[in-house]
Amino acid sequence: MSMQRGQYRKSAQRREEIVEAAFAVFARSGYVASSVSEIAREVGMSQPGLLHHFDGKPALLQAVLEKRDAKAQQMIAGKAGIDVFRALVEISAESQQQRGMVQLYTILSAEATNSAHPAHEYFVRRSRLIVTEMAQAFETARERRQLNPGVSPLQAALESVAFTEGLQLLWLQGFVEVDLGEQARTFFNRYFCEPL
Amino acid sequence: MSMQRGQYRKSAQRREEIVEAAFAVFARSGYVASSVSEIAREVGMSQPGLLHHFDGKPALLQAVLEKRDAKAQQMIAGKAGIDVFRALVEISAESQQQRGMVQLYTILSAEATNSAHPAHEYFVRRSRLIVTEMAQAFETARERRQLNPGVSPLQAALESVAFTEGLQLLWLQGFVEVDLGEQARTFFNRYFCEPL
Repeated sequence: MSMQRGQYRKSAQRREEIVEAAFAVFARSGYVASSVSEIAREVGMSQPGLLHHFDGKPALLQAVLEKRDAKAQQMIAGKAGIDVFRALVEISAESQQQRGMVQLYTILSAEATNSAHPAHEYFVRRSRLIVTEMAQAFETARERRQLNPGVSPLQAALESVAFTEGLQLLWLQGFVEVDLGEQARTFFNRYFCEPL
Repeated sequence: MSMQRGQYRKSAQRREEIVEAAFAVFARSGYVASSVSEIAREVGMSQPGLLHHFDGKPALLQAVLEKRDAKAQQMIAGKAGIDVFRALVEISAESQQQRGMVQLYTILSAEATNSAHPAHEYFVRRSRLIVTEMAQAFETARERRQLNPGVSPLQAALESVAFTEGLQLLWLQGFVEVDLGEQARTFFNRYFCEPL
């Protein structure tokens, strides 16, 4: 029994190492051009050994994406109205320390606009969820009289998501003027009566 | 002589067909995952036959990108200040009829954030040029007293480019609320005293 537990721990740690390697390879080459054998080499395993833990490239991608989203969800959980945007500014500021992850999301979400891409549904659902939650946060701010008059919650949410995605692209392209956290704050501030 | 001319015309037409095929393949699979042999199949040529016209995948990419940019440059040429933004709204509205091209640019510009990508320099230069020209147009609008007080031309240009890029991504993901032309107009209008 205790040996089984030890093996479980070892297996969980192995899975974690594989997810890290998959992240590194996807961030370097994008999803389409990456291979399971490349990920196996990165983590120092054989391809059959890796496939014992994850049954293919789509499963690896799923694990990589879930890990990152769980972190962001945690930072927003329990917040409402203008506080959601304060948390989003914080998430944007942290992104500036995670170039590989930002690059991975940027490449994958672009590739995944093709409906045949294995992450297509995932990215469509994710964007829809972010826009919906952000529109709800704008709406709550409106009810609390923190939103400027004339601002439509849904339009503001679409604009904010579009801006955030596009700013990451410019930052990845090397625009030194871009500060992801501060520019998100400046951008959001135009919608509110009180500054973030 | 007339036969040479005929051959030249035929060769130019062949090149045009190859560029169209390269566009279709890149738009479907992105640049990294596409192959010259796939493009050759698309246009119904042998791979050596195709390589007689273009000496590799990077040259094909270059030809595809140049064709599109020439069109946009033409629509902006000779305009200044607020008229530049009116032309940009028009270009955005036309994009909505060219999903394949928008998708190609979105995927390529994301892939090309890797400095090893053959189109890296191209996309960095292109974004820098667009931001610089847009900042200049905001500055001209300011001199003509068409810009709202407190707007920084460079910041407004970065925000506008980021927004435009991100909105295309949302549109490609299937957000039916997105109208590229109208939302660009609404977005730009916040910066100006007179509506576009």
